[in-house]
Amino acid sequence: MKKENLRPIFWERENLRLLDQRQIPGKKEWFVAKNAEDAIFAIREMVVRGAPAIAITGLFGAVLEFGKFPSKPSYAELQNVFTKIIESRPTAVNLRRAFEELSQKIPADTYDSLSWKTFQEEAEAFAISVYEEDLRNNLNLGKNGVSLFPSSPSKLRIITHCNTGALATAGHGTALGVIRSLKEVGHDLTVYADETRPYLQGARLTAWELLEEEIPSFLITDSMAGWVMASEKIDAVIVGVDRVAANGDSANKIGTYPLAVLAKYHGVPFYIAATEKSFDFKIPSGSHIPIEMRTQDEVTRLNFLKKEDGQPILEEGVIAPKGVKALNPSFDVTPASLITAFITEKGIVKPQDIAKIFG
Amino acid sequence: MKKENLRPIFWERENLRLLDQRQIPGKKEWFVAKNAEDAIFAIREMVVRGAPAIAITGLFGAVLEFGKFPSKPSYAELQNVFTKIIESRPTAVNLRRAFEELSQKIPADTYDSLSWKTFQEEAEAFAISVYEEDLRNNLNLGKNGVSLFPSSPSKLRIITHCNTGALATAGHGTALGVIRSLKEVGHDLTVYADETRPYLQGARLTAWELLEEEIPSFLITDSMAGWVMASEKIDAVIVGVDRVAANGDSANKIGTYPLAVLAKYHGVPFYIAATEKSFDFKIPSGSHIPIEMRTQDEVTRLNFLKKEDGQPILEEGVIAPKGVKALNPSFDVTPASLITAFITEKGIVKPQDIAKIFG
Repeated sequence: MKKENLRPIFWERENLRLLDQRQIPGKKEWFVAKNAEDAIFAIREMVVRGAPAIAITGLFGAVLEFGKFPSKPSYAELQNVFTKIIESRPTAVNLRRAFEELSQKIPADTYDSLSWKTFQEEAEAFAISVYEEDLRNNLNLGKNGVSLFPSSPSKLRIITHCNTGALATAGHGTALGVIRSLKEVGHDLTVYADETRPYLQGARLTAWELLEEEIPSFLITDSMAGWVMASEKIDAVIVGVDRVAANGDSANKIGTYPLAVLAKYHGVPFYIAATEKSFDFKIPSGSHIPIEMRTQDEVTRLNFLKKEDGQPILEEGVIAPKGVKALNPSFDVTPASLITAFITEKGIVKPQDIAKIFG
Repeated sequence: MKKENLRPIFWERENLRLLDQRQIPGKKEWFVAKNAEDAIFAIREMVVRGAPAIAITGLFGAVLEFGKFPSKPSYAELQNVFTKIIESRPTAVNLRRAFEELSQKIPADTYDSLSWKTFQEEAEAFAISVYEEDLRNNLNLGKNGVSLFPSSPSKLRIITHCNTGALATAGHGTALGVIRSLKEVGHDLTVYADETRPYLQGARLTAWELLEEEIPSFLITDSMAGWVMASEKIDAVIVGVDRVAANGDSANKIGTYPLAVLAKYHGVPFYIAATEKSFDFKIPSGSHIPIEMRTQDEVTRLNFLKKEDGQPILEEGVIAPKGVKALNPSFDVTPASLITAFITEKGIVKPQDIAKIFG
């Protein structure tokens, strides 16, 4: 019997049910959002993370909030709901874009002529379509990724970084989605998952997803990928991406760039799994991508699980001396020259061809 | 007024006083060893670490133990003390070699003709000479390292890995000793210290030493070194070494090799600071160096500092899901081709010249 696919987001019309990622890997608990405030809490407090998952949560949060209005609100009241949700994560481009798209679909003049019920149905349909499109794109992306590897079941060793799985998306995932798809077609996989300091998305989330999916894997510290490439025949490095510039330079979670340099040195193919939404042709090259510098605390402190009364709880510990200065760039930029290809929902695309496909 | 140099080991004839590294960076506390058992505890429980520091602790532990014998013990009893101490860290080559050297200096037949008092004096003199030699070698190594940089005070940015400082040696340190020496001659330094997962020697010890020495520095995760090299003009990577093979391939703390690959990619000089003891001409090349695989727990768990009653204490937290498999190679091998030069107490030595100097 096929195990049910891991899904972090369920739309239940009265509720939005979210897998509570703050509790992973300790517990598999669900967070139930009933209105915009709950959705904002979920985004702000990292119940949900990953650009597509955040956008979907925001949209459904708005739909839930609409249901609370006793009668049709003014267009301004509606925009207030949107703004409040967008501001829960001001840097999340997907979230902002999702609401811009919804606003474009139902502009002020159209809104006036719509019944409140029809508007709500249209907004819900839009949220569902964004959710389904993300899932469909990831499944197609995964299928395209499979085409890069032998068609007969083979022993494949893959390195990945950060969490790009079901937990970051509507389901299936991007880079981790390719790994899921490779498993589905019968390859004998071994995945090396970087723990991904400072926030440990690899140790906490990717390792957990791989266990859930019963994909053989090893957790490694980010510093071990070089040793793995030197010791084992690695078939590919597959990672996700935050933003791709017009020339193919790609910003992704800190630690991606060193992996790309190591892959080049070892002659290992380096693939970036990306849906169309990640390509930003307004940015000419990597040097124009702003790199968010996050709090030093993520480097000098660490969230960890502690057992209390038999229940694992998340706590924070200090791992560096008082007074130390730490740097915490959230992303680094991998130049297009180190990227073998992008794995996308529209096919395998070489860096020099992205404008032809997505421009 | 010159700040007193950081010293982790003090020989006080009745005692061996050791800076308790289990408490760093939380507290600066001293551990007092009064006999072999205390020294064994200190080595086994990581009160002291670093190959030279462990050898020195073992030797002084033996000298302390000799003082406890009411009369001259048999040579076999003496060897029992040695063996007990060597077995506190079976993989520590320096520790074993130190006792082999002591045994060679005073073989069984010489021992019989020596008064117990004279033997004890000779053993103490030997332990002191090993301590002083290590300190002297490190100071010379540091001075030689300075010769690689401009003679007038300059802005220098250096990346280092793991802890190779006073805490790992009799004092001054090797790679961190070069950094100390560069500061002493007036350079305007910025040091980027890798946290060095899994055991976090960089975050806990190197960051602490740099603060103690008031050397401007940033703590970074191991995954950030690529970003640092791409964003800043880095003058050198300087690391220590566990063992150098005859062809110059060098085994050092996991994460050293990716730094060397990144340095090559960015045209940054990559230096290994090493004393003569690290060169092992019995090993032809890096592929012959056995790599210790340590416990998975170091990757899936983490020691951190927690405050209790205002006192920082070390605790252990879990950072990965139950059932996850982790790899934990302790070292990786950097091929000679990526090493610009060795910084040694005998001068700056290119990989191809090591046999001429140390062979």
